[in-house]
Amino acid sequence: MRIFSIVPGILIFASLIAAQENRNIQLMPWPSNIKTTAGGQLVIQNSFSVGLQNNDPRLRKTAEIFLNDLRRHTGSLPLDFAITDQPGQAQLRISSQHPSKEVQELGEDESYKLEVAASGAELTAPTTLGVMRGLQTFLQLIEITPQGFAVSSVVIEDKPRFPWRGLMIDSGRHFMPLDVIKRNIDAMAAVKLNVFHWHLSENQGFRIESKRFPKLQEMGSDGLYYTQAEVRDVISYAHDRGVRVVPEFDMPGHSTSWFVGYPDLASAPGPYSIERKWGVFDPAMDPTRDSTYKFLDAFIGEMAALFPDQFFHIGGDEVNGKQWDANPKIQEFMHSHGLKSDADLQGYFVERVQKIVAKHGKTMEGWDEILRPNMPSSIVIQSWRGQKSLADAAKQGYRGLLSSGYYLDLNYSTTSHYTVDPMSGDAANLTDAEKEKILGGEACMWSEYVSPENMDSRIWPRMAPIAERLWSPQNITDLASMYARMAQVSAWLDAYGLNHNTQYVPMLQRIAGTDDVSALKTLVDLVEPVKGYAREALATSEPTALSPLHRVVDAARPESEAAREFSKLVDAFVSGKIKPGVEAEIRTQLTRWRDNDENLQPLAARSSLVQEVAPLSQNLSAVSVAGLKALEYLDRGEKAPADWETHQLALMQEAFQPKVQVMLMIVPATQKLVQFSAGQTPTTLALPKTPGE
Amino acid sequence: MRIFSIVPGILIFASLIAAQENRNIQLMPWPSNIKTTAGGQLVIQNSFSVGLQNNDPRLRKTAEIFLNDLRRHTGSLPLDFAITDQPGQAQLRISSQHPSKEVQELGEDESYKLEVAASGAELTAPTTLGVMRGLQTFLQLIEITPQGFAVSSVVIEDKPRFPWRGLMIDSGRHFMPLDVIKRNIDAMAAVKLNVFHWHLSENQGFRIESKRFPKLQEMGSDGLYYTQAEVRDVISYAHDRGVRVVPEFDMPGHSTSWFVGYPDLASAPGPYSIERKWGVFDPAMDPTRDSTYKFLDAFIGEMAALFPDQFFHIGGDEVNGKQWDANPKIQEFMHSHGLKSDADLQGYFVERVQKIVAKHGKTMEGWDEILRPNMPSSIVIQSWRGQKSLADAAKQGYRGLLSSGYYLDLNYSTTSHYTVDPMSGDAANLTDAEKEKILGGEACMWSEYVSPENMDSRIWPRMAPIAERLWSPQNITDLASMYARMAQVSAWLDAYGLNHNTQYVPMLQRIAGTDDVSALKTLVDLVEPVKGYAREALATSEPTALSPLHRVVDAARPESEAAREFSKLVDAFVSGKIKPGVEAEIRTQLTRWRDNDENLQPLAARSSLVQEVAPLSQNLSAVSVAGLKALEYLDRGEKAPADWETHQLALMQEAFQPKVQVMLMIVPATQKLVQFSAGQTPTTLALPKTPGE
Repeated sequence: MRIFSIVPGILIFASLIAAQENRNIQLMPWPSNIKTTAGGQLVIQNSFSVGLQNNDPRLRKTAEIFLNDLRRHTGSLPLDFAITDQPGQAQLRISSQHPSKEVQELGEDESYKLEVAASGAELTAPTTLGVMRGLQTFLQLIEITPQGFAVSSVVIEDKPRFPWRGLMIDSGRHFMPLDVIKRNIDAMAAVKLNVFHWHLSENQGFRIESKRFPKLQEMGSDGLYYTQAEVRDVISYAHDRGVRVVPEFDMPGHSTSWFVGYPDLASAPGPYSIERKWGVFDPAMDPTRDSTYKFLDAFIGEMAALFPDQFFHIGGDEVNGKQWDANPKIQEFMHSHGLKSDADLQGYFVERVQKIVAKHGKTMEGWDEILRPNMPSSIVIQSWRGQKSLADAAKQGYRGLLSSGYYLDLNYSTTSHYTVDPMSGDAANLTDAEKEKILGGEACMWSEYVSPENMDSRIWPRMAPIAERLWSPQNITDLASMYARMAQVSAWLDAYGLNHNTQYVPMLQRIAGTDDVSALKTLVDLVEPVKGYAREALATSEPTALSPLHRVVDAARPESEAAREFSKLVDAFVSGKIKPGVEAEIRTQLTRWRDNDENLQPLAARSSLVQEVAPLSQNLSAVSVAGLKALEYLDRGEKAPADWETHQLALMQEAFQPKVQVMLMIVPATQKLVQFSAGQTPTTLALPKTPGE
Repeated sequence: MRIFSIVPGILIFASLIAAQENRNIQLMPWPSNIKTTAGGQLVIQNSFSVGLQNNDPRLRKTAEIFLNDLRRHTGSLPLDFAITDQPGQAQLRISSQHPSKEVQELGEDESYKLEVAASGAELTAPTTLGVMRGLQTFLQLIEITPQGFAVSSVVIEDKPRFPWRGLMIDSGRHFMPLDVIKRNIDAMAAVKLNVFHWHLSENQGFRIESKRFPKLQEMGSDGLYYTQAEVRDVISYAHDRGVRVVPEFDMPGHSTSWFVGYPDLASAPGPYSIERKWGVFDPAMDPTRDSTYKFLDAFIGEMAALFPDQFFHIGGDEVNGKQWDANPKIQEFMHSHGLKSDADLQGYFVERVQKIVAKHGKTMEGWDEILRPNMPSSIVIQSWRGQKSLADAAKQGYRGLLSSGYYLDLNYSTTSHYTVDPMSGDAANLTDAEKEKILGGEACMWSEYVSPENMDSRIWPRMAPIAERLWSPQNITDLASMYARMAQVSAWLDAYGLNHNTQYVPMLQRIAGTDDVSALKTLVDLVEPVKGYAREALATSEPTALSPLHRVVDAARPESEAAREFSKLVDAFVSGKIKPGVEAEIRTQLTRWRDNDENLQPLAARSSLVQEVAPLSQNLSAVSVAGLKALEYLDRGEKAPADWETHQLALMQEAFQPKVQVMLMIVPATQKLVQFSAGQTPTTLALPKTPGE
């Protein structure tokens, strides 16, 4: 799966490895300090062994996991490679100054130093956590060479920029089976993320076994929940990979599924049923009754004992207040307690919950809305609202995490995520002490529109550059380098069973009902799902938790690599920096795309799921014809007529409109060709405005 | 993943569905009786439900598994589809006359009748087993249509030709983790196989936990074994899918791993260590000591209790007798008991073991060698020697299974397996009563050269046509139909997590060290691993259990589909039955192959694993040049010169020689072009003779 060479012609590391030779190093995240040396290469033979300088069970477990990963990445067998009893003889010698903590803590030292030479490699770190990070670096350094798998000599000193680097997975809206969770933890560890934030309850499902309140899962989950034994297994699996597990139980809103079994918790009488639709709903816990807090005390106590992490996420977002407004007793309570608004009432609730969380030894975390004047300074704010919200919190002395800009479910480009920095915007102007409050960030994978089959394709590979943003020095920002390394990491993750690459063609085969899907793949390679919340807005019938996620919009990747490559070609062409062959390459692609519709039509005639993208296929053909015509004008040295250009620009506008919730991504580049052929300065066609974006 | 249309231009079912319209039906195995009707189609909506006419827990479990499979094949979600309490309202109504047996028995009724109309489907069967088979048929009938997923109206009455239809997996030589076993059981059930024969002990590993003799797994497995709980889980998983599990413990040979912990069992003193090489080795159990039988009595007793199946496989193959010959006590024993040969001594051993197996309530099964005059007629012979051996046994009143001709590990073509019939050869001349003794067949997957990563690619899809041979009427033999349907089944199995398709490109990416493997894929698409036992014979260094299986020979498919398609084109061309475009298609392919080497060279320069196939790449180029030149002669209406032809035929001979254990499979077709261009009658180039084949 790895270690892939640099894309020919792009010297991506010239800017990164100052004054060093240009080596084929594809690390992601990029380390703080890297120096290639002239020490030859360490070849990974079957007899490769690891020596441990410390007798620490955690270190041994770490080495075992590493060896298993090494086998997966080299296609080796269980009996290949070993931990040797004679560490001095090992090809890779590992020492850590002390074990990492029994329960992984925020801010534990994750630094490491890795030196590789032909004669062997040394990995040293203050803690086992640093060893884990260093071993991932070692794995990513492996290349296939003329001598077999090997690591070239290098010295790396590395440490994370932020102590909190997370991924949130929403198991509430669509349940995600354990194997999906575990392979994503593998992938998180591979890119040095350290927090798995597990969103476990939602209007659409309560996903964890409570022994104290079993009706939560029995009536609120459709049978789709994790047992406590399974949860402990996940926690242990994550712990072995240096990943903390922070549970989230969203309250007082987003909680319909709790009320199916326990309607008394709600602010209106019920009965309740599991919500099937998406959105913000009226049901909310009743913040005015002591019984609510008694329940939460027992429940939080149970969960606090199950999840060892110091942090406990109580959600706290998006209460519409309707049940509160409609309940006279609650209104009376607000009046008598001087609570002037629903926000005040929510603040009252969160303050009481915070005390319960603290009583059970945990530090409360929640979304922006939980920040209230009376909160203790220990709480952590997860900001879906942005850097300003984060900076405001920091100024008030609160720690925070950035999630705004990192919503993977919204299908934005990798560039858009990669260029979001927790320390930018208002945060850039904080004092050093205030900046310390910004712990890092977390990407969010909300699950309205993902199933176990396609969730990986929304998280990966775009998660990896976000992980780099949170780990690597702030000045690692080169987009070409990022895209090149992301492509390699993406293939690398196949070894862990992630299906973001492997499931793409099978999904297309099911859509088309044939194993020959080349025409469909050509089209779908060039489309992207609509962005932001446009999917809801553009739906022709209301989507629910039961709507199959088997359409082209579900198979299409969030960012079309083929369209991006085409845009680069066109940009090079219209800028006049023409390399030989660029025009021919553009023509070849446009010709293929022009002719693709003919091959797609038989599939469309047979399958409803292909039929619905037939208009896009026709657009692809029409747009390609326009692009070819533009090249023809240019070749003839003839300026394209203005009326032709006008007509084509209108075509481009139409062709770029979303259809069946996907967009044809070669339209902007083709428009540039049209403008260029007409003697105009090419402009970038903006994403069409759609409701919900 | 399904239901794929007919390959355009081939009316594959004309011969199968007498006097019926030609429908897009891709079943494998093909049913005994199928009649398409004009009743429209049953559309599978989200609200699709199954109604059970019997209140039988096994039937309910069967329906649950079916619904889960249905979700996988339509990309639906856990809450879609249901078992309804009002069976009359269901879209699919199921009834079985009685439950299948608690422990699945040989010869249990597996027949079913399935009727589908637009208004609903009825599945009736004498037993739950028949329901399982019928549900697999229903699943395979699903097509994506202009109205969504649907099943066209049809009436099918179906039953198996043979009662024993198996797959043997060797977990001994290379351990296969549980997930590999389970997904293969899923796939077995999908093609209506009913016996999983589990080869659990070998010289290279003892793969199951014995509580009675724990040193078997503790010292004989490198820690790679199944716990009894895991085995029970597999048995239950298989049982739920209508698959019996027959364990094999190979004795008295193939048993080195037993002796590591229990050297006293052996015929020479030891000590022993786990065997790392492949082949037939000297160590064998000592058949002369009572302690051997005492041990086996306890061990077989333990395993007989663990595995509920009636049959118990004791191997019994390939004893070279060297330890016996070298042991004076054993020689003395043979003399005093009138045992004249090692074969006699082995017969003595097997007779005693048979009594032990019988004592524990089981019926003994073994390879050809166990057949001895004194054996009770209950035993079952699994024949690796062929139909003659099977027919001889049947004449003596013994039941048998054919495995000869079904060795999947030997990388022979699907045609070669599909055309082997248990009732052909000597078996064809048996009396009806004798024919009854032939229970069916079992494909064998020996694991010297497979890892968990590529075993699926050796079993699937070639196993599916063997399953058809064992299930379908004997006259279902059309090869074009078989290949077309096999391609569809192959993609269909992706839904169960089989990796025979999905792991191919990731393996090539690891070999090349890049995600752009198009040049390597073009080459590897056209090669096959050497056949039979040539891999050992052609190895440059002795392969062992530790040799990585990550080379091109490990990624290449047993049968090259691209080469087969090319051969068909060339055959059509040289036969004169030229369809428009055939020559152009041949030319396009040859041109692409000629030019491929240029793109492969940069990969070869970087990777040792690509470098080793560089000579094949050069051959591909040279062979393609010859083919193009032949077309040129033909186009010019000019006969190719004799000396040119001679030169090219020599080139073909050389190019068809195995290199690094793979063969370039377009050579024979290209030779035909060369001969044709020289005015010769095209001949089929035979597979090169290699030692070990």
